[in-house]
Order: sequence, then structure tokens, then C-alpha cells
Amino acid sequence: MSRIMERLEALAGDTDEPQRISRFYLSPAHRKSVERVSGWMCEAGMAVALDAAATVVGRYAASRPDAPLLLLGSHIDTVRDAGGYDGTLGVVAAIEAVARLNAAGRRLPLAIEVLAFGDEEGVRFPATLAGSRAVAGCFDPSTLAACDRDGVSIADALREFGCDPAAIPSLARPPHSVRGYLEVHIEQGPVLQSLGLPVGLVSAIAGATRAEFFVEGTAGHAGATPMTLRRDAFAAAAEMAMAIEGAACARRDVVATIGQIAIEPGGVNVIPGAARFSLDLRSPSDAERDGAFAAIVAACETIAPRRAGGLRVATRHQSPAAPCDPALAAFLGEAIARRGLAVQRLPSGAGHDAMVFPPRIPMAMLFVRCKDGISHNPAESIMASDAEVAVDVLLDALTAIGAECRDVAA
Amino acid sequence: MSRIMERLEALAGDTDEPQRISRFYLSPAHRKSVERVSGWMCEAGMAVALDAAATVVGRYAASRPDAPLLLLGSHIDTVRDAGGYDGTLGVVAAIEAVARLNAAGRRLPLAIEVLAFGDEEGVRFPATLAGSRAVAGCFDPSTLAACDRDGVSIADALREFGCDPAAIPSLARPPHSVRGYLEVHIEQGPVLQSLGLPVGLVSAIAGATRAEFFVEGTAGHAGATPMTLRRDAFAAAAEMAMAIEGAACARRDVVATIGQIAIEPGGVNVIPGAARFSLDLRSPSDAERDGAFAAIVAACETIAPRRAGGLRVATRHQSPAAPCDPALAAFLGEAIARRGLAVQRLPSGAGHDAMVFPPRIPMAMLFVRCKDGISHNPAESIMASDAEVAVDVLLDALTAIGAECRDVAA
Repeated sequence: MSRIMERLEALAGDTDEPQRISRFYLSPAHRKSVERVSGWMCEAGMAVALDAAATVVGRYAASRPDAPLLLLGSHIDTVRDAGGYDGTLGVVAAIEAVARLNAAGRRLPLAIEVLAFGDEEGVRFPATLAGSRAVAGCFDPSTLAACDRDGVSIADALREFGCDPAAIPSLARPPHSVRGYLEVHIEQGPVLQSLGLPVGLVSAIAGATRAEFFVEGTAGHAGATPMTLRRDAFAAAAEMAMAIEGAACARRDVVATIGQIAIEPGGVNVIPGAARFSLDLRSPSDAERDGAFAAIVAACETIAPRRAGGLRVATRHQSPAAPCDPALAAFLGEAIARRGLAVQRLPSGAGHDAMVFPPRIPMAMLFVRCKDGISHNPAESIMASDAEVAVDVLLDALTAIGAECRDVAA
Repeated sequence: MSRIMERLEALAGDTDEPQRISRFYLSPAHRKSVERVSGWMCEAGMAVALDAAATVVGRYAASRPDAPLLLLGSHIDTVRDAGGYDGTLGVVAAIEAVARLNAAGRRLPLAIEVLAFGDEEGVRFPATLAGSRAVAGCFDPSTLAACDRDGVSIADALREFGCDPAAIPSLARPPHSVRGYLEVHIEQGPVLQSLGLPVGLVSAIAGATRAEFFVEGTAGHAGATPMTLRRDAFAAAAEMAMAIEGAACARRDVVATIGQIAIEPGGVNVIPGAARFSLDLRSPSDAERDGAFAAIVAACETIAPRRAGGLRVATRHQSPAAPCDPALAAFLGEAIARRGLAVQRLPSGAGHDAMVFPPRIPMAMLFVRCKDGISHNPAESIMASDAEVAVDVLLDALTAIGAECRDVAA
């Protein structure tokens, strides 16, 4: 087994729940992974520290003082009952790239920091991305008061972990000194597999709109109410679902998902009097996403009075898209092309640590093919050879970015 | 308040659950209603007995021996948290019609039995229509072993109630001696209200097919899976719902209802990998219902592979339609017309005691308008004047049927 795969397997063994992979922010399993990752960073020639937000920071010094800083990173926390690659692949791949530099005795005119964030998934606390926001300079100190199910606040859990929450604001890297942030991550979708490519270049991290739709109809006897006298809330919801799908398909790079639906009263022989469903809408283009959402609401507002009666739409969450930096992405793209591979650009529908860096710090992401697009699931799977390609591409890009810095300095 | 409405209100007070109307087969509340109904029957000049299936039987003798028997009836059990008219209206209206004969000192060349059945709703035991099946001669003795949640069998509960389950087979009326069975019942649908009519003539009790549809798709990340690579089980179910509605609307007197749907895994940000929904399909025509079901299954079998993947359809229940006897129904229709009302024929989508009588014993039913079609609900409501119309029509029809019997005998 390759060292990358061995290390990913070792991290998968650090769990807060027996028999499955569940590693939560500031937990005992997180502590184990911090120690494990710290050891690998040391071994790769990095100076290691745990920062105030419990991010493991490994610094590989530049070939000269005052060199710009390049950030590499991803996260080591997981969802509950997770797979073994989401987040951890990016951390292990970054350490591996630095280890190869170190093994060759090479330093670049670029300081490198590998960041292993502890809070990307947001499982334990109702807040997320503390570590990456701190580095990017957009951490909101009010989130420190957010509590887990046992009433423990993030601030208290950080102190318990040996971190000083009051020092988090000082973690922000001065943008002028940072060349950018690069992240390797599994795709969590089926596009690369469908194209037969080991890696792909992320164009942007999609923005998201989440909303709930409440459809009000009239319950009635399933046998005694003619089709023409029904106000069936589920039939209305089903037509809305078709309209929502149509609105997404009509636009480029927009995806729409109804992941939850509930109908009332829920008897086999009762016409549904109410339906509630969720909408998750994403796009790398905020304009496309806003346009799709407006079209969806308009379509549903036409369907509701014709079929059922009332409609209420409650927007639960909105986040803008985070574009990848074209210049930074080009380094990854050229490195992919130098390996003779097609450079496939694709949006990231999922959120990542990388998304908090723009606009202050430019970022780019490299996706790695994952089996059947399955993620957040024990069946998550990657090929060792794809992980090697990712490290090769990352190292090649680092070298090219370093050369650019040398040229600029010269 | 009219006597009919007073009596319906009194019955609504016999309940097994405080603060709502819940009257279950062979329960303490059922006992109270048996006594209450028996008293009214006595008062109306009937000889009263509780039969072996716990049906209250009130017999009003004919004007001559060997006259044929006419059965009138409905049920006095209710669903949980019921309204005050489903079933009870038919019993109270039949007693009222006989009471008017008795008050006028009239006897018809027709013996009349008013039957107050105790088990139409099937709430307490997983079996139903014991009382009416016994009279109709289609009682299945194996259902006596069915048990309630406390493990009490129907047989034991009958004995506890003072009835002899072994005598149930002897309750079957010899068909040659019975002219037919008539039942007054609330419509439980909105048709009569929409037409502004107090009563309507039932054409047939609909047959029903109940099935479950299992749609298998592939779960996936809501952000990371392009629309073109999805196998969304809920999107497939929504298209199936539209096809099901279309198949019902394309046929006369067919209604189709999806009253339950569940999708998995059920995360806001996860494409549904599986969907399960119920279908309740009814029609007074078995051929129409079978045709609609075949068309629905064919449509869903086309949608499934194109959109999601697997489809499994499990039929849970099938019951044939029970046609009303045209000659018997004509007596009710003529009585309606004699009151200057339009004779509106409509199918009964709901099941009733009446449906177990054909083909051995002809039956007909008179529907009474109910507010907004609401039933099986505390909001169930009728107008006192409509109940009076129903009693007038029933008494008029009884008289006409009696005249026919006299003519035949003469």
C-alpha cells in the first residue's frame, strides 16, 4: 500500500464512535488525529504548531527570507459514519508534497504552510469553518458561544483542548504576504469518474440557497372526493418538483434537489391536506442561482392556487459562490496538462474550507475522482494511483508558483 | 332541535375516550349505545334483540304473516376521534322512519328489520363488517380469532359482551325471504354540497385497489451531482404521481390518491436514493379500475428505468365494486323525485355495510349531504333539514316497496 493510503487508513482509525468513522471538532479522536498529523509534518521537515482554533499548522520554510507564503490545506474532522477520504486526502496529499521537497533537499522561494483544519463539517457545533475562517481573517468571534448538545461552548471546548480562543483573531494571515490557498479534495460527485479522469480543476465553489416550501391543500376522503373537486397538496408538490427540476435543467451549472418531503395527514385513504418539502439549489454563478430560484418560486406560485391553495416559501440559508482564482488555478491546470491529462474544469457543488479565502486570499482547488461520486458514507472510495497523481500535480504547481515568485522577486 | 339531531348528539356522547367520539366494537361505549338504540327501537314499536355478532336488531312486524323482509341499517361504531354522523345517521333515520309508521298505526305488507351493526370501521380488531357479513351470509368464522392490541380475540370479546360467536352462522337471512337492504349514510364527499342537493342516490360502492410503490434510485450529494447524472428516486416518484393523476382523470368515475410518501435518506442536501408511496385507487366499475391500475403500472415502469432504476409494486388490498340494485334504487329515486328534487346518482368511494349484501341480497343506498365532504373528523357536520329529507325519502320508498309486495302477493 502507498504511504498516502496507509496514512488515510490510519486517520480513519481515529474515531469517536466505535465501528465507524466519526471524528468531531475538539474530541478525543480529533486529539489523536492532531498528534498523528503533527508527527507526519515533523517527519516532512515542517515546524509544527497547534493554533488557537485547533488547526495543525506545519510550516516548511522558504529558500529565502521574506518569501511569500502559500497555504495548503483541508480538514481532519468528519461527518458521523463518514468515509475515509473527505478532508483527510487534502491534508495527507499536502504533507506528501512537502515530504517530497524535503526528501530532495529542495526549498522553494515560497514558504509553505500545511493546514489541517478541525471544523469543516460542523457536526458537533452549530457553526463551521472556524479554523479556515481564522486563517482567512473572517472568523466571527460570536460563534465561540455556540454550544454542542451537552451545552459545552466552542470557547470552552477550545480551552479544554489547550487552545486560547482569545488569540483566534491574531491568526489571520496578512493578505499581502500570502500568494494563495490550494486544496486537494475528493470530488464527492460522479463527473470525473464519468469522464475517466483522475483529477479535475475546480472552477468555483457553488453558492447555495436552501428553502422550505409549505403547500396548503384540503384533506379529504380518498374514495369520496372526485378528482375534479380535490385540492391535493401532494399532487401540487409533485408538479412543483417537476417545475423545479425543469428550472435547474434549463440553466447551465445549476442543480436543484428536493431531499425531504412530508405530507399530512398521511393516511393511505386520505387526500393530503398539506405538504412540506425542502429545496437545495446550487450554482457556481450567483446570477444563475438567483434566476433559477426566482423562476422556481414563480412557477410554484402559479401551481399552488390552481391545484391546492396556499403556498409559503421560507428561505433558510443563502451563501454566495466562491470563485477560484484564475491565475492560481492555471498553475494546477498546467501541471495536469504536463502529465498528458485532459484539464477538466468543474464546479464544486459542496462547500469546502477553500471557500472562505476569497476575496482576501486567492484560492484554487484540485478534485480527485471518487468511486460513484459517493461521499459522507463508509462506501467512500478512491484509487491510490489517483491520489499519487494529485500529489504530483500539487508538487508541480508548487514548483511553478515558486518559480513565478522568484521571477517577480528578481 | 329535531329528534333525529337530539339522538345523534346522544350517541356522540357514548365514547371510549374522553373529550372525543371514539366508540369501538364490543367496548363499554358500544354497550351504552346498544342500550340507547334498543330503547329507541322499543319506543318505535319494534321487538329488539342483540344478535350473536352484537348487532342490535329491531323488528317491526308486517301487516300479514309470510311477508318478505326488508333490512334497513348502518353502524354505531366509529373511528377514533370521529364525527357524530358516520353510521349513526343511518341507524337513527331508519328508526325514525319506523317510528313514523308506528305512530300512524301503519304496518306494511313487509317486515322491517333495523340493524345497528357494531363493527364497520374495523378500529379495534384487524377485521371488519362482522355484523353485516353475518346477516348477509358471508361471515368468515376464521376472523373470530383476530385479536385487538391487548390480545383479546373477537370471539372472547363477543362472549364477554354476552353474545355467542358459535351462533353467528345462523344469523344469515335466507335470501329468498329478503326483499333487500337499504342504508342511509352521509356522503363523506363534497359532491352533493357542490350541487346544492340534500340527498343523492348511490350507483355503486366503489371497488378498491391499494398498492405500495417502491422506487429505487441512487443517493448522491445534492451539490456535486449534475442534473444529467442523477438517479433521483423522488423526482421519479413525482413524475409517477403526475402519471397516476392523469390515468385517473382520463377515466370516468376513477379516483386515485397518494396519501403517503417517504424518501430516503431524507437529508436536505442528499439526492433521494429511494422513495416509497401508497396508491389508493377506486371506481364503481371494476373494469375501469383494473384498466387504470394497469395503465398506472405501465406508466411507472416506463418512468422508473429512465429516471431512477428499480420499481417494485406490491398490491396490498383488492375489493370488487358492489353495485346497487337498480330496482331497489329506483324506489329511492322515485321518492326523491316526488319531493321535487333532482335525482343525482353518484358512486360511493367509501366502503359501507351495504357492500357485503350483493349478490345474495340486493341493496341500495341514500347519501345525505355533509359539510365540505368532511368525515372521520370531529368537524363532520350535516343539516337537520337534510336528515329529515332522508327520513321522508326512506319512508316513502318503504311504502312503495310495500305496495309492490302487496301487488305481487295479490
